[in-house]
Amino acid sequence: MSATPVRITAVDTYDIRFPTSRELDGSDAMNPDPDYSAAYVVLRTDAESDPEGHGFTFTIGRGNEVQVAAIHALRHHVVGRSVDEVCADPGSLFRDLIGDSQLRWLGPEKGVMHMAIGAVVNAVWDLAAKRAGKPLWRLLAEADPEWLVGQVDFRYLTDALTPDEALELLRKGRDGAADRTTNLLATGFPAYTTSPGWLGYSDEKLTRLAAQAVADGFRQIKLKVGADLDDDVRRCRVARSVVGPDIRMAIDANQRWDVSEAIRWTKALADFDVYWIEEPTSPDDILGHAAIRRAVAPVKVATGEHVQNRVIFKQLLQAGAVDVVQIDAARVAGVNENLAILLLAAKFGVPVCPHAGGVGLCELVQHLSMFDYVALSGTTEDRVIEYVDHLHDHFLDPVVIREGHYTAPTTPGFSAAMRPESIARYTFPDGAFWAADLAGHDENKKGQAA
Amino acid sequence: MSATPVRITAVDTYDIRFPTSRELDGSDAMNPDPDYSAAYVVLRTDAESDPEGHGFTFTIGRGNEVQVAAIHALRHHVVGRSVDEVCADPGSLFRDLIGDSQLRWLGPEKGVMHMAIGAVVNAVWDLAAKRAGKPLWRLLAEADPEWLVGQVDFRYLTDALTPDEALELLRKGRDGAADRTTNLLATGFPAYTTSPGWLGYSDEKLTRLAAQAVADGFRQIKLKVGADLDDDVRRCRVARSVVGPDIRMAIDANQRWDVSEAIRWTKALADFDVYWIEEPTSPDDILGHAAIRRAVAPVKVATGEHVQNRVIFKQLLQAGAVDVVQIDAARVAGVNENLAILLLAAKFGVPVCPHAGGVGLCELVQHLSMFDYVALSGTTEDRVIEYVDHLHDHFLDPVVIREGHYTAPTTPGFSAAMRPESIARYTFPDGAFWAADLAGHDENKKGQAA
Repeated sequence: MSATPVRITAVDTYDIRFPTSRELDGSDAMNPDPDYSAAYVVLRTDAESDPEGHGFTFTIGRGNEVQVAAIHALRHHVVGRSVDEVCADPGSLFRDLIGDSQLRWLGPEKGVMHMAIGAVVNAVWDLAAKRAGKPLWRLLAEADPEWLVGQVDFRYLTDALTPDEALELLRKGRDGAADRTTNLLATGFPAYTTSPGWLGYSDEKLTRLAAQAVADGFRQIKLKVGADLDDDVRRCRVARSVVGPDIRMAIDANQRWDVSEAIRWTKALADFDVYWIEEPTSPDDILGHAAIRRAVAPVKVATGEHVQNRVIFKQLLQAGAVDVVQIDAARVAGVNENLAILLLAAKFGVPVCPHAGGVGLCELVQHLSMFDYVALSGTTEDRVIEYVDHLHDHFLDPVVIREGHYTAPTTPGFSAAMRPESIARYTFPDGAFWAADLAGHDENKKGQAA
Repeated sequence: MSATPVRITAVDTYDIRFPTSRELDGSDAMNPDPDYSAAYVVLRTDAESDPEGHGFTFTIGRGNEVQVAAIHALRHHVVGRSVDEVCADPGSLFRDLIGDSQLRWLGPEKGVMHMAIGAVVNAVWDLAAKRAGKPLWRLLAEADPEWLVGQVDFRYLTDALTPDEALELLRKGRDGAADRTTNLLATGFPAYTTSPGWLGYSDEKLTRLAAQAVADGFRQIKLKVGADLDDDVRRCRVARSVVGPDIRMAIDANQRWDVSEAIRWTKALADFDVYWIEEPTSPDDILGHAAIRRAVAPVKVATGEHVQNRVIFKQLLQAGAVDVVQIDAARVAGVNENLAILLLAAKFGVPVCPHAGGVGLCELVQHLSMFDYVALSGTTEDRVIEYVDHLHDHFLDPVVIREGHYTAPTTPGFSAAMRPESIARYTFPDGAFWAADLAGHDENKKGQAA
């Protein structure tokens, strides 16, 4: 007699918001006042001793409740499924979520509905990795290449990458993987830091934090630009003079410019030996990025944190529009779609340098880069993961940075779980923080009533 | 003493769903069972005698509640605004909605959040046209060109279209506008019909409806394809034999194919003198559409109903990827963004043939094509608006088709208002229809619970 299979019994959602806008942390040319937030999901099972699966979408405040509603709309695909089956093949759930034709209409495969799928899919991978007793990077790096190929949706990709090509890349990625695992566990994965460069910071704060970044062992920093060119020239000069000639310095316009303005502005800052210009224009503008890249070389062009799905990444690579692919762990449809994007980048030989920061994005995306290093690209050359020193204390298994490197996680799972007390305190609008805050003054509404 | 200005007092939302999946109306290769739905919004004012503004997002069932939540998230930008001010310059509200940086993160400018903005923006235009005493097409066609240019967001467009170029196009569009208005009011705007060609229909029904379409005066029909090539060959043969050689016959794959499959399948059907292949692949795949277009000529390539925003349309035109631009009235950010897309199409000399059908899309989009004809492109040559004979009886000012032409609306507004009794009956899940239906059997949930 077989035991009753363990099933997923609940898809619990939480609207968690941190009041980051009050410190000007995270301010850039397009996002002056973000309240870093998470539409958070917990998959619960009917085995009390078993682990839960955690995942989330990162947002910056208002609208987080819309994201929660979108996750909620996926519940009927999840509740009741066998945990063994879904963990043995997360792609089975991924395909059902992507394939819901009525929900697909709301994208297709982009925006709120797609990010909701990402949150749920990532929660399944968290659950799968916990049950396997491995950190996610290791589960992926040790997985059978054919099984990994089966996790990828190749629809709309086959003109650039076929399943056979993906399989070959993954098989080749296995050569030397054991050595790279050893190396990763010993030294970690290179990081760069955005902490010095937020637009809201004074030159004094920029100077202090840039010097600190070098002292902490980072070999690359990043400055937000795009609000005022004179200010940017001054800030780049300050930063370069602080870090010296050997530290890479990237700039990030957060989609502020049209194509010609991006070219003009980037060229004006190139004198300070800019390594890459990030998000020079709309993340949707493949041809625009290609034109910018041709014009601003040798400054590299980077984008991806807002790239909606694998189809846009495919074209950015086909068009020669980017030097650096910046995956985001929670923008696309989770680990499965990021596998497709990592494979595309490997096929085209373009390095992946993930976007991170926000709430928990560092915790998630480190696993994807570490898998990429150990079992796909096989190198950390010109690869760095963004690091921002925000909100890590709310996580149960926070990232650990040593000498400018992400330390490889060893705890089973996807490092996605937030502390229960943080969830309780920052749930909007009823958690203890927001209840007290809203009782005092309501900053989240515009005072436009008559 | 000035009177107290009239203000918008409420943004009321409704989750309206029609059980269309039970008739196989609307079935295609990607959407086998759509329940045509509307996330519907009414802007109310504090002047009881004044008109309301109506707008909506079209969805196909599940997830309509997410779309409603997204419209709800925009309320703080709308409630309390002066009706005079917002009707004198709908762009002022449009810019505030697009410019909400926290909400922008949820796209940016795509998917659920962007469609919600479209619903609210369209409701404002409905209100503005009603107050002006004009159907929307006429309000636009008679508007000052400089004012119209001020309604457009040129961000990310200036490498393809500048405000000065747009102004010149609109000024030139005025030549002969009075004659074209007369002609439009006399004969209407050409339509084509998709009614014969849904995938779920038998050959008998296809034959009967195709013959009826010709008898009704349509000069173009469209068939859904992409599920089974042998079936498609047979259906195209049947349809061509019924309509004869002089009627244009388009086919529509609803994004079913990868690039190489799109080319192979389209070529296999080209023998039946196919006029255009619509949505051959992902709407995000600009380079894919360009490759398909090069390969399948002289069959034309059409897309747009799922194109998320002006940035993708810009690139489809820049890349020479489409022969036909298919705007949708409710997918992008409303009239303002569609003005940008019409201007781009005019700049590149590509005809606009709108997507319609669904719930109320015919009612809305006719106004945009009629404006395009009277005051921008100046021609109906190779221009047709899709027509589907579904659900029009739920609207107060339904489209009127005569001899294969949309009759020009004369009632003030955007023809967006649904009948109050339809709203009440089909509100999900509490309207009379759904309450009775759900009490009987619950078709909207998958039976996956343990």
